[in-house]
Amino acid sequence: MMHHALSVRNPRTGECDYTIHPPSLSELYALCSQLRSGQKEWQKRGVEHRIDVLQRWKKSAQRYRSVLEEALITDTGRKWETLLEVDLLFARIDRWCELGKEFFDKQDTKPSHLPFIEIRQDVQPYPLVGVISPWNFPLLLSLIDAIPALVAGCAVLVKPSEITPRFIKPLMQSVFDVPELASVLAYIEGAGETGEAMIQCVDLVCFTGSVATGKRVYTAAAQNFIPVFLELGGKDAALVFEGANLDYASSAILWGATANAGQSCLSIERIYVQSSIYEDFVKRIVKKAEALSLCYPDIHHGHIGPIISERQVSIINDHLRDAIEQGAQVLTGSIQCEQHGGGMWCRPTVLTCVHHGMKVMTEETFGPILPIMPFNTEDEALTLANSTIFGLSGAVFASTVEEAYRIGQKMECGAISLNDAALTAIVHEGEKQSLKCSGIGGTRMGVGAMRRFVRQRAFLAKIHDVPSPWWYNSTVPSM
Amino acid sequence: MMHHALSVRNPRTGECDYTIHPPSLSELYALCSQLRSGQKEWQKRGVEHRIDVLQRWKKSAQRYRSVLEEALITDTGRKWETLLEVDLLFARIDRWCELGKEFFDKQDTKPSHLPFIEIRQDVQPYPLVGVISPWNFPLLLSLIDAIPALVAGCAVLVKPSEITPRFIKPLMQSVFDVPELASVLAYIEGAGETGEAMIQCVDLVCFTGSVATGKRVYTAAAQNFIPVFLELGGKDAALVFEGANLDYASSAILWGATANAGQSCLSIERIYVQSSIYEDFVKRIVKKAEALSLCYPDIHHGHIGPIISERQVSIINDHLRDAIEQGAQVLTGSIQCEQHGGGMWCRPTVLTCVHHGMKVMTEETFGPILPIMPFNTEDEALTLANSTIFGLSGAVFASTVEEAYRIGQKMECGAISLNDAALTAIVHEGEKQSLKCSGIGGTRMGVGAMRRFVRQRAFLAKIHDVPSPWWYNSTVPSM
Repeated sequence: MMHHALSVRNPRTGECDYTIHPPSLSELYALCSQLRSGQKEWQKRGVEHRIDVLQRWKKSAQRYRSVLEEALITDTGRKWETLLEVDLLFARIDRWCELGKEFFDKQDTKPSHLPFIEIRQDVQPYPLVGVISPWNFPLLLSLIDAIPALVAGCAVLVKPSEITPRFIKPLMQSVFDVPELASVLAYIEGAGETGEAMIQCVDLVCFTGSVATGKRVYTAAAQNFIPVFLELGGKDAALVFEGANLDYASSAILWGATANAGQSCLSIERIYVQSSIYEDFVKRIVKKAEALSLCYPDIHHGHIGPIISERQVSIINDHLRDAIEQGAQVLTGSIQCEQHGGGMWCRPTVLTCVHHGMKVMTEETFGPILPIMPFNTEDEALTLANSTIFGLSGAVFASTVEEAYRIGQKMECGAISLNDAALTAIVHEGEKQSLKCSGIGGTRMGVGAMRRFVRQRAFLAKIHDVPSPWWYNSTVPSM
Repeated sequence: MMHHALSVRNPRTGECDYTIHPPSLSELYALCSQLRSGQKEWQKRGVEHRIDVLQRWKKSAQRYRSVLEEALITDTGRKWETLLEVDLLFARIDRWCELGKEFFDKQDTKPSHLPFIEIRQDVQPYPLVGVISPWNFPLLLSLIDAIPALVAGCAVLVKPSEITPRFIKPLMQSVFDVPELASVLAYIEGAGETGEAMIQCVDLVCFTGSVATGKRVYTAAAQNFIPVFLELGGKDAALVFEGANLDYASSAILWGATANAGQSCLSIERIYVQSSIYEDFVKRIVKKAEALSLCYPDIHHGHIGPIISERQVSIINDHLRDAIEQGAQVLTGSIQCEQHGGGMWCRPTVLTCVHHGMKVMTEETFGPILPIMPFNTEDEALTLANSTIFGLSGAVFASTVEEAYRIGQKMECGAISLNDAALTAIVHEGEKQSLKCSGIGGTRMGVGAMRRFVRQRAFLAKIHDVPSPWWYNSTVPSM
């Protein structure tokens, strides 16, 4: 049934105005077999060739930029984050090419530390990598694993979220302009069923999305006996200590919590503020939050876009309802998501009187919600921040960067912004891995991004002038 | 039921003369919680301290060497491979300590390539690593992942095979002499059920063993949402080309196929010889094979030990029966495993007239069986060698090392011995990963061995004299 057409909702109008066509199983198999066959040449031509092709594709994609942006804006209902997403992608392409050179330069023959053995090394890419990507940054997150895999010499099949699929066509047009790339990179439309079928056809799978789906992907990958790389949810905490620059901290946290309407894995979703500065901080952030407006009715004005996924609206509403029922105070924002013009919207919402018995403090909300709790001591702050199943990222604001670093080292998460918030949204550098339920597998950042997509081989030879066979004679009685 | 005592068979006498006592679930939980609590200090004290402790333990283990060897010899029924195994382990301890220093030296703060961001990095060990290890090299394979994990800062819980558990007691005595190590390294006795329970209690699992069990371990790890590293079976091929030194090749292949009675994942299990030298090669290897004798009745004399596991005897017999029924010729060796003094034995067995419709050419045999097939061209040789679900290692013999290297690069496996066989049995250097069904996850060799056991963290800070907040102002309309 997986190749039945699916309707796609428009996040600004609420109407289904687009249709996707998942491949049939036989179409999927045929595509995988084409990609596998293209991969042989792709690997053989070497990394310099692959970088050259990717650079040509970058130029082609630049030509399609306006239609690509238009499709992405329709997919997500928001504008400025889309422009930022496209900018970030183009900057990353060059960086991945640089990292690819660095990675392959390191793979030269190196002498063994043993005097009697020479070891040569090479790397073998996994022939076909599958990528299952989410709806919150549909373009960037569909390519953040795909491009390093391509640089490493793999072919890549991408299945973006069925919620935001409109960008696929203009993107693939830019790919078709570069036939060498089209032979090793393809996108398919489809939902969970198509993703499941894809896992059975590839040699390695990368998934970005929720913990619940990530666990299913992991089990499916294990059953198909292929490696898996999971980049999952977060419940990032920001800690604000006495001595921090409260004007800067409140702006940065507000940005970190409300950019893309909070629909980002590394969104700030919990704020802990030292008691002595709590009132001051809350006052500042409420004032700044109130100055933000919805990008409605005019998409070109305002700050906060719609909630993209209808299912996410239910989760946000559930978290808000649960918190309010348990006594949370809404100092500003939406008591529930608001309907405007058919789309669903949530204002930057500051909550106080919250505690860890509320979903809004323990589950991923993925909305522009800022629950704030006071703390007295550093130990208390760290206990609260680390009391979570997630371990993606976090933020510490203190009197100096050194002080923030000292405290940040006690946070159980993969990336920590010092005197700043959500820096990994923009800075895709620094090898890091998620802790706890936020992920499985090697780093997506730095040279490690390539390492995930290859297996190393070792070629061993005895050096000639060594008595031979050296171990043979010493261990086996003579024959 | 898992804590009921289990009887252990002696591979030389066939008698059950030893009993193991798997922990109850509550004993297992208590042990894990002790190890987790010991790990905090272990991580905090740093790599220099950990190396110092491991070196002290090495001295302690040297004092227990003779009882340890005695237990291992009883476990496995063989002597010279045990002495080699213990030698290899002691040499590796020093090397892992060196690699540990190298690994942690690389983790220093490094400047980001971005002008406006400083990135610091550190690594966080997985608190508790579980190791499930096999019976063929019971000591070495129980520590080959455990020691790098300890160096990296993890606590480690090891469950060796229930078939060869006698070495655990003397080994743990040597560990108890070094209390700092005893707080982070423990062994438990038990079979599959205990292994399954262990996977539910640890943060990462390493498994060495069969493909079938490896798949089960992978699925269990996925369900418990922890990373997994699998080192599984092989069906290693040796290719012998015209121009190779046949005297050396036949000795090296015989050693690679019969050491430890073939009970090694990287044993040579398939031999392909170019037609022009086929007769000559077969004649030589048969003559050398006939010169080998069973280490029976005297364990101190002879070359070939018993088949350690009763289950393996059935598999070897099944492969031999299947091959002979299909027309294989037994030029020398055992038509079925032979019973001597209660133990089960298999002589070095050379088979010709074999083909890929026989189990002995496609499934892992794990016995001293040498099936030999002729080939005409290099392409044919590579097609035969690569026609397997396994991708562990291989060997190429040609006129020169360069020629062997050229051909070896077309072999689909992780480690290739050039003009030699099974070098990875002795040389644990050169990062490599298995291909196909022979494994999942990062390299066990080189610095990569440590990398498997840590997650990297990144700490990001803006550099002060940059207009601040730089991205904030440029992307968000002013608030």
